[in-house]
Amino acid sequence: MPAAFKTVAVVGKSDAASLPEILDQLASVLREHGAKIVLDPATAGAWKGKPDAVLQLESIPAKADLAIVVGGDGTLISCARLMAEHSVPLVGVNLGRLGFLTDIPADGVAAAIGAVMDGDFVPEQRLLLSGSVHRGKKALISALAMNDVVVSRGAIGSMIEFAVTVDGEFIFSLRADGLIVATPTGSTAYALSAGGPILHPALQAIALVPISPHTLSNRPVAIRSNSRVEITLVRGHDARVNFDVQAHLQLEPGDVVHVQAAPKPATLLHPKGYRYFGMLRQKLRWTERAS
Amino acid sequence: MPAAFKTVAVVGKSDAASLPEILDQLASVLREHGAKIVLDPATAGAWKGKPDAVLQLESIPAKADLAIVVGGDGTLISCARLMAEHSVPLVGVNLGRLGFLTDIPADGVAAAIGAVMDGDFVPEQRLLLSGSVHRGKKALISALAMNDVVVSRGAIGSMIEFAVTVDGEFIFSLRADGLIVATPTGSTAYALSAGGPILHPALQAIALVPISPHTLSNRPVAIRSNSRVEITLVRGHDARVNFDVQAHLQLEPGDVVHVQAAPKPATLLHPKGYRYFGMLRQKLRWTERAS
Amino acid sequence: MPAAFKTVAVVGKSDAASLPEILDQLASVLREHGAKIVLDPATAGAWKGKPDAVLQLESIPAKADLAIVVGGDGTLISCARLMAEHSVPLVGVNLGRLGFLTDIPADGVAAAIGAVMDGDFVPEQRLLLSGSVHRGKKALISALAMNDVVVSRGAIGSMIEFAVTVDGEFIFSLRADGLIVATPTGSTAYALSAGGPILHPALQAIALVPISPHTLSNRPVAIRSNSRVEITLVRGHDARVNFDVQAHLQLEPGDVVHVQAAPKPATLLHPKGYRYFGMLRQKLRWTERAS
Amino acid sequence: MPAAFKTVAVVGKSDAASLPEILDQLASVLREHGAKIVLDPATAGAWKGKPDAVLQLESIPAKADLAIVVGGDGTLISCARLMAEHSVPLVGVNLGRLGFLTDIPADGVAAAIGAVMDGDFVPEQRLLLSGSVHRGKKALISALAMNDVVVSRGAIGSMIEFAVTVDGEFIFSLRADGLIVATPTGSTAYALSAGGPILHPALQAIALVPISPHTLSNRPVAIRSNSRVEITLVRGHDARVNFDVQAHLQLEPGDVVHVQAAPKPATLLHPKGYRYFGMLRQKLRWTERAS
Repeated sequence: MPAAFKTVAVVGKSDAASLPEILDQLASVLREHGAKIVLDPATAGAWKGKPDAVLQLESIPAKADLAIVVGGDGTLISCARLMAEHSVPLVGVNLGRLGFLTDIPADGVAAAIGAVMDGDFVPEQRLLLSGSVHRGKKALISALAMNDVVVSRGAIGSMIEFAVTVDGEFIFSLRADGLIVATPTGSTAYALSAGGPILHPALQAIALVPISPHTLSNRPVAIRSNSRVEITLVRGHDARVNFDVQAHLQLEPGDVVHVQAAPKPATLLHPKGYRYFGMLRQKLRWTERAS
Repeated sequence: MPAAFKTVAVVGKSDAASLPEILDQLASVLREHGAKIVLDPATAGAWKGKPDAVLQLESIPAKADLAIVVGGDGTLISCARLMAEHSVPLVGVNLGRLGFLTDIPADGVAAAIGAVMDGDFVPEQRLLLSGSVHRGKKALISALAMNDVVVSRGAIGSMIEFAVTVDGEFIFSLRADGLIVATPTGSTAYALSAGGPILHPALQAIALVPISPHTLSNRPVAIRSNSRVEITLVRGHDARVNFDVQAHLQLEPGDVVHVQAAPKPATLLHPKGYRYFGMLRQKLRWTERAS
Repeated sequence: MPAAFKTVAVVGKSDAASLPEILDQLASVLREHGAKIVLDPATAGAWKGKPDAVLQLESIPAKADLAIVVGGDGTLISCARLMAEHSVPLVGVNLGRLGFLTDIPADGVAAAIGAVMDGDFVPEQRLLLSGSVHRGKKALISALAMNDVVVSRGAIGSMIEFAVTVDGEFIFSLRADGLIVATPTGSTAYALSAGGPILHPALQAIALVPISPHTLSNRPVAIRSNSRVEITLVRGHDARVNFDVQAHLQLEPGDVVHVQAAPKPATLLHPKGYRYFGMLRQKLRWTERAS
Repeated sequence: MPAAFKTVAVVGKSDAASLPEILDQLASVLREHGAKIVLDPATAGAWKGKPDAVLQLESIPAKADLAIVVGGDGTLISCARLMAEHSVPLVGVNLGRLGFLTDIPADGVAAAIGAVMDGDFVPEQRLLLSGSVHRGKKALISALAMNDVVVSRGAIGSMIEFAVTVDGEFIFSLRADGLIVATPTGSTAYALSAGGPILHPALQAIALVPISPHTLSNRPVAIRSNSRVEITLVRGHDARVNFDVQAHLQLEPGDVVHVQAAPKPATLLHPKGYRYFGMLRQKLRWTERAS
């Protein structure tokens, strides 16, 4: 991580009404700190101000020292996959209710980003998954996921059947709506709704969470993050694989979905005082009384 | 129910290798009891014997006094919806492992059906659901379900949002993979995998079972079977409704799915000694030790 | 239910600081409506005013036409068991956050009770359970429960084993922390925490909810409320049975706990506009957006 | 681990009828391999043969190079806590149905132990927990656990309330039947019944599993095994802490239960070909069909 953030990318949810005003505030604080401002075309289009550069989203990671994402968790997740490869850290500003990942509220954005620019932050690394799909000897798709890689039934509604191995060892054959392979980050997203455990982000683990499994003893399993998971579709018309619900592919019986940790994690910068469990307590409405 | 079953329909899973032999045995015992044998074209095509009549499946209920289904639970369920309207009772013969509903094993079929023809059986009524979909003022589809009516996301994988009312009272707005409206019969099928309760068939109840709900306190709810349930799709591309996973329709936001008890239940005839919980114990591998 | 409530009992949680003031308001509105006021000794002791009579709690049901309970759900539940036998309806005033059952807030008590006295209310019947414990031929205890009858392990911590029958039919033998037999009212209390379904109060049903069962397929079962449930303790030092967590008995292997519906339900009077699901939505923090 | 096991302890479940015969077989194969045989007094008392030494269980770890446990998982667990301190590896022979940990069947014991003595085995380390209870400045108890440390309600049946911190950070305040702090080994025991995830033994993790929590969003959490967990009892008569359900202590409000990884793991030796998931598949009756 650089001692100072000289070039800062800002990526916004371009259709948000409050985005222009946030961009004004961000520009002001970033320039006070002597940073250059890079925007992607969509964010630039939503702003009347003048960035130092406008770059395609894909070109930003190579140029930026820091990425500020203005939007919700979904926006941050899609950015984080891009930034991870070049180890560009991310800060998340939320335009609505605070998210699991975007923990700077819009109304305190100047002070919070000022502090980050002063080096006053809590860095946190988050595991990403790297997934690919193989049909025979052909690799069909390859993608990263910050939350999860999900193999699931399609629209028709009947359960699918698949076999799962971990590091080459056969684990189980499952008839279910699907299987979620989740990172600790993803463990509080879809996997939680499907009955999975919460994995602390510092735990180097991957959760395998069956979705509505036919056999009731097929319960969520957490394995080491350096494991290789393979899911082979055995039966099922219209089965799908998706990566963070943002890339999709239709599967055919015999297709194999490979999932393992990505080579590089994403780095999030949190405001000083950030506490993982404090955030969780608020998001999940756990009882707040301390002893 | 007639004192004697004069006309007996046999509906088989026509691609089952053992079907012809079972049909031979059934024909023999049915004729010994003086019954006429009616087959649907597919079953007739799988048999070398000569039925008294071959009728389209849809025409059988008006003619038969009893329907013997040879196959699995899925085969029985699709027959039961047809037979219910004319109150024709059903007997289920299973060609593989015993099902929840098809409880006569293939290797004891002659004796078991003989007993049924002698009036030696345990009748049981099973609630059916009647569902329909409305788009504005237009009714798009109307269908029966013996297991469940399911509103769920399609292949794309993101949660859908819908609002549920019971007897006109707003219950909740749900972001989830879907909602299962299940009969007691369906409570041991898909709804069980999704975390729903088991409803005893004699309980006049319907279960509303959220599938992977975003809000963790959205738990399964059981209501009286004379309730009217309405599910309005609020958000979701590619959402679907299905009836027993056998009829499907794509939904658009604003579509309303109506579900309520069908006017007539299905009637199952079980072999003497049938016990609902005994069957469940075996299917779910509950501990069998008695006190 | 009487056309007018001539004698009204008020039972308060006597250690609540705000009780005296609520009693002042209640006395005022009740006397305006020409009703006599009866208190139990503890409530009378907390009030400076002068009731028309002070009666032991046990003697109140025979004398009162209506019981106003001032406290939380726990206070109402213990009163309701008493009142049910004489079919005295109950109104619940909550001194803190609204409960599942006590739905009149303290700060609107005069208007709300005035409306009830005017006949302006929504009556609702709630099933009670009647339980007893038998050791050999001896009946050890007999008690009512509005929420649940719970057989569970004691302090030592190891699972207990018991066999369950419904209407004489063996259901399962269970190794678990225990079993909850819950009414619809109890289905949103302890049974919900243990994974049980929500049963609508109008559903004539009882839920059997295993607590941490060793066999993962032992899932909650809902049966008709006219069923007789018997639970026989097979193994377990220090097992217990409790009724609404308010009466307790230590069990020995061989003891049989009988549970069935009590002869008379409790009657709750709710303010006009009461909706069961609306209350649930608030208590369980379900999403409130209507379609 | 020694290149050769010169002194081998055998600890048996002394009331098992088949124990003497197993001891005969073990003695024969151990002596063929030149090993000395050490027994604890109870095991010695169940055998007609002559061991090389009889030692109190507590003295065995300092003397033995290997411990063979003949019994069930419970027997192995209590031995493993003792052996871990001296890093004595354990082999488990099961007299009944194979356990999660005792994976050598009685009828193949000679061949299996012969292979182990020949160095033909799969070693596996299992995390242990070290727990202690503090009342004010006083340490009341300190114990190891191979499965779990459990804080739970006592016999009276009402929920207890406690606050949990991890590494000094407040996590949540919980009203529940209790909290299970489980190792990966314990994740397939009580914690699984309470809804916890399965943690692969190679994952350096601890699961925090609430038992019947009042707040439905209080879901199981997995944290790193080098975390310090503190549980402070806030409210609850008759609350208890237990270690592997084998040591117990009654808690008072204000008591703090400390749990962290024990300094040394237990080492299990499995027969060649042992697969963790294969064992799980069999124990949990997962579908066995491979793709």
